[in-house]
Amino acid sequence: MTVLEGTMRVSATPEAFRRGMRRLAGACTIITSADGSGVSEGWVGLAATAVCSVTADPPRLLVCVNRNVWAHKTITASGVLAVNVLGRAQDAVLSRFSGAGVCAPEEKFHSSKWRAGITGAPLLEDALVTFDCVIAETIAASTHDIFICDVVEVNDHGAVTDPLVYFNGAFFS
Amino acid sequence: MTVLEGTMRVSATPEAFRRGMRRLAGACTIITSADGSGVSEGWVGLAATAVCSVTADPPRLLVCVNRNVWAHKTITASGVLAVNVLGRAQDAVLSRFSGAGVCAPEEKFHSSKWRAGITGAPLLEDALVTFDCVIAETIAASTHDIFICDVVEVNDHGAVTDPLVYFNGAFFS
Repeated sequence: MTVLEGTMRVSATPEAFRRGMRRLAGACTIITSADGSGVSEGWVGLAATAVCSVTADPPRLLVCVNRNVWAHKTITASGVLAVNVLGRAQDAVLSRFSGAGVCAPEEKFHSSKWRAGITGAPLLEDALVTFDCVIAETIAASTHDIFICDVVEVNDHGAVTDPLVYFNGAFFS
Repeated sequence: MTVLEGTMRVSATPEAFRRGMRRLAGACTIITSADGSGVSEGWVGLAATAVCSVTADPPRLLVCVNRNVWAHKTITASGVLAVNVLGRAQDAVLSRFSGAGVCAPEEKFHSSKWRAGITGAPLLEDALVTFDCVIAETIAASTHDIFICDVVEVNDHGAVTDPLVYFNGAFFS
């Protein structure tokens, strides 16, 4: 515990916070973007659970992204991103986008069907739902940026299947 | 679809957005606050799924709250809130805090065990985890405020049970 200012501004430790956050279940998503070249070699993506709805009218959501991840630079340069929400059968897609070095950047989009959305960001064709977005505002928060996004297009993909959910260090459906 | 500016700034409809967001699974939480009087009559709370981690170091999370809900005024006036993450057996707690008029404000905290945390905001004793927080920054986003919060204390409560998750209009564990 670190006393920041006054008696109330103590801070929980990063370790206690990380351990606690493992108990906040989150939908598994792939955040994607594109460099504007119009070819799939310019696509980037990362796995994330830090996505939430902000307002429905106008349609707005937010995404928190670590500034150190490879995709961050493309997201900020292009000003667009897409949120691809994964279903229970898509843990293999998740693996391709999780962690560093598991899969070369150009291989992340192989073995699953992706197409460019209105913004140019890639959309996973059989995701539970995709949100194609233009970034309206970026808020710096120490190691991360919070991207507040206007939703350009929503694609529900067919029947509702169970979602892929992260909880307590593992994935469930 | 509304054309905002240029060809790319079209907007999804609120209805399409709401329907799509039903497919983004979210952990069920109760967001609480207190009016500073030090008595439980000053406690307020609402059910929410729009919570996500921002950074671990410093420990920070964010919560989106509609400015029209009854608890909003107390949250902004006090500058504190707590996030109480519900387990599978706590759907009765969720019901007390969901929607309007289901339960009178002073009855929301009955029939489950709550205690004041460091900030004064009430913590649910058998929640999966609680995060007691001081609001660091408030960002207005049309109908909602985004509260970026410094986490003061994290309480893991005993064994990990299954979480209570909202998906496609219903609650699951």
